[in-house]
Amino acid sequence: MTPLPRALAAETVGTAGLLAAVVGSGIMAQRLTDDVGIQLLANAVASIAALGVLIAVIAPVSGAHFNPAVSLAQAVRRDLPWSRFPGYAMAQVLGGVLGVVVANLMYDLAPLHLSGKARTGVGQWIGEVVATAGLVLVVGFVSRGGRGDRAPWLVAAWILAAYWFTSSTSFANPAVTIARMFSDTFAGIAPADVLPFVIAQVTGAGIGLAGIQLLVPEPKGTP
Amino acid sequence: MTPLPRALAAETVGTAGLLAAVVGSGIMAQRLTDDVGIQLLANAVASIAALGVLIAVIAPVSGAHFNPAVSLAQAVRRDLPWSRFPGYAMAQVLGGVLGVVVANLMYDLAPLHLSGKARTGVGQWIGEVVATAGLVLVVGFVSRGGRGDRAPWLVAAWILAAYWFTSSTSFANPAVTIARMFSDTFAGIAPADVLPFVIAQVTGAGIGLAGIQLLVPEPKGTP
Amino acid sequence: MTPLPRALAAETVGTAGLLAAVVGSGIMAQRLTDDVGIQLLANAVASIAALGVLIAVIAPVSGAHFNPAVSLAQAVRRDLPWSRFPGYAMAQVLGGVLGVVVANLMYDLAPLHLSGKARTGVGQWIGEVVATAGLVLVVGFVSRGGRGDRAPWLVAAWILAAYWFTSSTSFANPAVTIARMFSDTFAGIAPADVLPFVIAQVTGAGIGLAGIQLLVPEPKGTP
Amino acid sequence: MTPLPRALAAETVGTAGLLAAVVGSGIMAQRLTDDVGIQLLANAVASIAALGVLIAVIAPVSGAHFNPAVSLAQAVRRDLPWSRFPGYAMAQVLGGVLGVVVANLMYDLAPLHLSGKARTGVGQWIGEVVATAGLVLVVGFVSRGGRGDRAPWLVAAWILAAYWFTSSTSFANPAVTIARMFSDTFAGIAPADVLPFVIAQVTGAGIGLAGIQLLVPEPKGTP
Repeated sequence: MTPLPRALAAETVGTAGLLAAVVGSGIMAQRLTDDVGIQLLANAVASIAALGVLIAVIAPVSGAHFNPAVSLAQAVRRDLPWSRFPGYAMAQVLGGVLGVVVANLMYDLAPLHLSGKARTGVGQWIGEVVATAGLVLVVGFVSRGGRGDRAPWLVAAWILAAYWFTSSTSFANPAVTIARMFSDTFAGIAPADVLPFVIAQVTGAGIGLAGIQLLVPEPKGTP
Repeated sequence: MTPLPRALAAETVGTAGLLAAVVGSGIMAQRLTDDVGIQLLANAVASIAALGVLIAVIAPVSGAHFNPAVSLAQAVRRDLPWSRFPGYAMAQVLGGVLGVVVANLMYDLAPLHLSGKARTGVGQWIGEVVATAGLVLVVGFVSRGGRGDRAPWLVAAWILAAYWFTSSTSFANPAVTIARMFSDTFAGIAPADVLPFVIAQVTGAGIGLAGIQLLVPEPKGTP
Repeated sequence: MTPLPRALAAETVGTAGLLAAVVGSGIMAQRLTDDVGIQLLANAVASIAALGVLIAVIAPVSGAHFNPAVSLAQAVRRDLPWSRFPGYAMAQVLGGVLGVVVANLMYDLAPLHLSGKARTGVGQWIGEVVATAGLVLVVGFVSRGGRGDRAPWLVAAWILAAYWFTSSTSFANPAVTIARMFSDTFAGIAPADVLPFVIAQVTGAGIGLAGIQLLVPEPKGTP
Repeated sequence: MTPLPRALAAETVGTAGLLAAVVGSGIMAQRLTDDVGIQLLANAVASIAALGVLIAVIAPVSGAHFNPAVSLAQAVRRDLPWSRFPGYAMAQVLGGVLGVVVANLMYDLAPLHLSGKARTGVGQWIGEVVATAGLVLVVGFVSRGGRGDRAPWLVAAWILAAYWFTSSTSFANPAVTIARMFSDTFAGIAPADVLPFVIAQVTGAGIGLAGIQLLVPEPKGTP
């Protein structure tokens, strides 16, 4: 197992990269077009391309969770020692905020400032439940029995779909949700709307864990 | 072979996920842009990303048909026991309707309501024949001789193409067609137009089965 | 080696599928949006998704050339017997025209009618040379030393790029060029402009063959 | 190791192909649509599709750097002999300019002419640092321990993301930056703005090299 400091550094850098991509591409999209459909298309494509690469590069070091809901689910499934969970979660939130700072600086904005973008309502909360449940299910699938090489593209494909089909555009990640408070741009979320999103994400993670029991049988030969 | 209840649960969940993606991304697209080209582009990309992931995760459990036309073709080809076909078809229709309910709820719409969107005419029926024939052919190809790992991306690529090149935007699936009656949004279809689509799809499946004989030789070494 | 009639049937069906996708998605794009950028984006994505699937499925039968320029280059490189070249070329042209008929019928247009779309000029001819040279080079690369599994995506990626970066939108295929005369829609080409395109394509194929000598070394262990 | 002249020819051809794609698709995009978001989307997709194919085909010959910053980093990491670095860099710049000439000619523009497009400011320079650091990190990852087959898609995915999330649209390559001076079109850059971009890219390469130490452990079994 990777030494903890190295794993935490990897989670920090990876989550920073992901947030720089999510927030940065949102700003670029807003500046280039007025069509919100094109904005979300570009934002989704850039985000999942970055996510796929970051998972591929960082998974051998730390598992490339970038997401406290995923780390929680992996801990429940004994794929991450419980003792590592608090460090992972803190590294992910820290990395996420750092990534938003980088995005803001790249676009000559104040490094940290709060978003005023309302994201609320039962529909969006259901969206977060669905998005996170699916994510945890996909991660559970690729964590089993030597399927790790498929993780980058399966996780990226799920998030690409969920960007568009869930009403919340799929945050599906408490660290991402917290970090996206700090940029009043396309990808932002108002601070008051963060907590319900996080609750929905944790709920979705639980549903995803249940789905793994149903849909992801142990590969043959597993003891 | 997976026990039947588990396989049926998997087909239900998978088809629900597919329909949530198809219908949900259509609603999102309609709300974000007025350009119908961008709407269909986003709808197609989100749908096939979800389809690819769902096939990858669920294929080891139930084969990941999500489609009575595909189950029928697999039964004809002895890749699915005939005794399982009725259960599969019912699970797929049920899952599809559940997925539409989820999509409607995510966007604060009534859970079930009928579509008024006309989809009819000889051109579109030919489109459904072509789309389904190609789908059955691709599934037949990946079902043979250890090519299963390529199923998610080949099936997804075919549907992506067919979304755009067939005049019907490629339903190619009776369960999907029935389910899409229940949302009066981008992806909907008026109830009166469902039956001809299903007839075209079954016709296409037959043509696809004939195509397998021509184009998908048994791999070497098969007895 | 596949018996010739089966190989010719496979080339016919595959080229028909490709042309149905190219022409059909062009018609759909024109009907859905007025933005020509979105039209070409959708047309390119649909075309290469179909191309990738068709190569994957049909390559084991006939090599999946779908293109007399590719068949010519493969014959020069002794990957296709010269005796098969005329049959391949005829099957490809026939299949291409059939595919256009299918596309026209899906959209309730006359099955065969001539395009009035001018595509001419030195710039576009250079475009065809570049597009075809690159295609032949990529095909030469994947034909050598067990790289066949990468053919669908490498060829599709090249054509996706060439759709956008060449001034001619990359026909790169005499059968495709001839077939696209027969639909006066987005993907059409006026009959008077076909011959210079074909000449440019054959020229490009020659340059591509030279490039293979430079860029595609024999794999180690080849006698 | 490939003889030097053959390797230099490969770097020249590959970088020419890349620049023809980058500049050519930018011109096409400008001519087809007024929406700058769609322009950048098409430009990014075409560029990275070409990049992926070119890496796949040319990597076995020369490593497929196409980029002096990458060659520099590979030399520092002893994956490229220092004696080859000057030749590689010159071949890349030469190839890049040739590619721009091809793009200009395809669109009936003067073969070489200077861009007037300003690209400057601290935000964009940070963008170049981030884009190049990530690129060098990804290249370092795929260079280690038999991961070469993943290079085309990981590098392409990174560049796709960086096109959209960095404020500079990710040149990330001194040869590309120099070459893009020579077309006053979508992808151009004013000569006065080239040097700061190159300085930022070299800085980013250094950060990327440091990141490799942290994030890319030697595979097990490496001596």
